[in-house]
Amino acid sequence: MTDALVKENERVDDLHRNGRLIIQNPKNFCFGVDAVLLSGFARVKKGERALDLCTGTGVVPILLEAKTQGAHFSGVEIQPDSADMARRSIKLNGLEDKIAIDEGDIKDIRSIYKPASFDVVTVNPPYMPASGGLKNDFTPKAIARHELLCTLQDVLSAAALMLGDGGRLYMVHRPHRLVDIIDAMRGMRLEPKTMRFVHPRADREPNMVLIEGIRGGGSWLKVMPPLVIYKEDGDYTEEVYSIYYG
Amino acid sequence: MTDALVKENERVDDLHRNGRLIIQNPKNFCFGVDAVLLSGFARVKKGERALDLCTGTGVVPILLEAKTQGAHFSGVEIQPDSADMARRSIKLNGLEDKIAIDEGDIKDIRSIYKPASFDVVTVNPPYMPASGGLKNDFTPKAIARHELLCTLQDVLSAAALMLGDGGRLYMVHRPHRLVDIIDAMRGMRLEPKTMRFVHPRADREPNMVLIEGIRGGGSWLKVMPPLVIYKEDGDYTEEVYSIYYG
Repeated sequence: MTDALVKENERVDDLHRNGRLIIQNPKNFCFGVDAVLLSGFARVKKGERALDLCTGTGVVPILLEAKTQGAHFSGVEIQPDSADMARRSIKLNGLEDKIAIDEGDIKDIRSIYKPASFDVVTVNPPYMPASGGLKNDFTPKAIARHELLCTLQDVLSAAALMLGDGGRLYMVHRPHRLVDIIDAMRGMRLEPKTMRFVHPRADREPNMVLIEGIRGGGSWLKVMPPLVIYKEDGDYTEEVYSIYYG
Repeated sequence: MTDALVKENERVDDLHRNGRLIIQNPKNFCFGVDAVLLSGFARVKKGERALDLCTGTGVVPILLEAKTQGAHFSGVEIQPDSADMARRSIKLNGLEDKIAIDEGDIKDIRSIYKPASFDVVTVNPPYMPASGGLKNDFTPKAIARHELLCTLQDVLSAAALMLGDGGRLYMVHRPHRLVDIIDAMRGMRLEPKTMRFVHPRADREPNMVLIEGIRGGGSWLKVMPPLVIYKEDGDYTEEVYSIYYG
């Protein structure tokens, strides 16, 4: 069955989590540590429905389905090739009844899902503003990294629409965008409630930030201890090891 | 000279910085690690004029005068007893030509200083909202800790008024107020540009945050490596030791 689902230039990677596999095309875009950390940060409770925006090859819903007791997981992706690859990964794992991949544009998310129909939204969006020469680079890598097809505002608008009061957003992003993020989240009543900075090493600047926002939440932010990726000897820290393989 | 300047119940503490001394009354309020870390975080360049809001006993201007090459330092304090104590500390150190303490209410700061007349504003404001029973507790300790006589908005309004474009604000506050802080700073065109979280220990949540805002600055935030107070053996880290005594 695997052979029929995997196309030329694609490979199948082991997610080291309940035997889950993922199909990726290294020429396009492979998931990174950010997607894995997001899946470790997001809380999906028993019976909840979760939606992953900009899902790409579907790595976040596949990991969350394996890690949590959520009832159902959806992923929406604008690029047809990525959405197709994600769907084939779902089949490869036999998870068609637990995970659905929908092709579509989050700027028009109301045409795909009903408002407030999810308990949790996750997103690992493009981090960098579209600027200069990049504006004409519509390769899958550029689309995954730069705000060419969706901006931070688009992502947060879609999340706000899809969550009812008390619903939770989990996002991974770059610390240098934090003021824009906080400003936009509060503006959309997605109050930032928990934040965790990810540092490559204990004494280095963070290069990622994980944020939990609660729709309609009150003002009180919990900043967690630093999440450190590498120990001094260059190995993963115990915590990152357990997020990957635990 | 010291005896004439120090009143009953007051004591003189060594700031371990160029022989600087400070008069404090332990019954009221003594400065903490937050004021010291703020003085290590704030940049005052050669020839600049700095203003410390809610200056209390004047510890921040006294430390900044010793640590930087700023031309002049002002401190404004609403409590007459604290302002008087700060003035006596300035005399005790013979710094009357470098540091001026002004008694007044920052909500009416225009009556004390001209707009945009400082290059740098520092502030270690009350951290906690005034609520419940505290509303009637106007002891010096309560005033220093709770937003009884000035709120976060008051502090930021005063800073915005006192800084011209490119002027810099340095504030120490609590991480749980961060969303309010960022929201209010951006609303007043005091763009947060640098942020540093202070953790009691490397693996613990931060209990303070140091923020630099630039008046009229563009959107790009630098989050610094964690500032850790204590090593595992309970001693200060090298960095904190050098901020205190270096």
